[in-house]
Amino acid sequence: MDMHLVAVGVVRSPLIDAGDAPKQGDEGAPDATIVLDEGFLPALDGVTPGQAVLVLTWLDRADREVLAVHPRDDRSRPLTGVFATRSPDRPNPIGLHRVEVVAIDGAELRVRDLEALDGTPVVDIKPVLGTDPADR
Amino acid sequence: MDMHLVAVGVVRSPLIDAGDAPKQGDEGAPDATIVLDEGFLPALDGVTPGQAVLVLTWLDRADREVLAVHPRDDRSRPLTGVFATRSPDRPNPIGLHRVEVVAIDGAELRVRDLEALDGTPVVDIKPVLGTDPADR
Repeated sequence: MDMHLVAVGVVRSPLIDAGDAPKQGDEGAPDATIVLDEGFLPALDGVTPGQAVLVLTWLDRADREVLAVHPRDDRSRPLTGVFATRSPDRPNPIGLHRVEVVAIDGAELRVRDLEALDGTPVVDIKPVLGTDPADR
Repeated sequence: MDMHLVAVGVVRSPLIDAGDAPKQGDEGAPDATIVLDEGFLPALDGVTPGQAVLVLTWLDRADREVLAVHPRDDRSRPLTGVFATRSPDRPNPIGLHRVEVVAIDGAELRVRDLEALDGTPVVDIKPVLGTDPADR
């Protein structure tokens, strides 16, 4: 089975290395820009400023062999399976980020609360599900 | 860059073909079982019954060339970019399912509200983020 991801875009952010990055976007991430590949621009039609979306990334600096971690790198906390944590180190290092779209300019999405590092590949964008089934 | 996913498990469900599946899990999906590959069992340590988790799947029957759809297959709704919808047809068909863990028996997780079809590969499980940063 072909389970190979394609990058649909890339994160541009002032966050250059992992030591700078907050653990979650609402813990102080700077605004960032998602630069889509032009070929995927039609997929963005209907995404609007002010909307909350889920950005899926490929955490390319993760260690895929890790199955258990100390949550939030706190050695006083017991080793925990990665499926019970948001550790980037996991068998398939897909990052899931809830962000707010601030502005859209062509293939560039300005977003708030994206804690991904500069250069991180973007693999998907999904709307946050509302309570109205018509919005899904 | 290696962006190749590995299956960490598989969905076992009474939902056999796409015509049977609800559009979202809370619209009437039957209980389902996630059967993890034994090698990934340590990653499950810390996941507990009653917990809400996000299951990421590979929607292997999706059309990856599709960039715009009529939302919910309703032809009266205008064509919309797939990044503004939850269509399975999208460049990287990663399914994102919020489910409740009902029971865990070895490598088998019984879950509620998983709308994925029988045989769908599972690629990740993540906790739903709470409001307490210590839980993240």
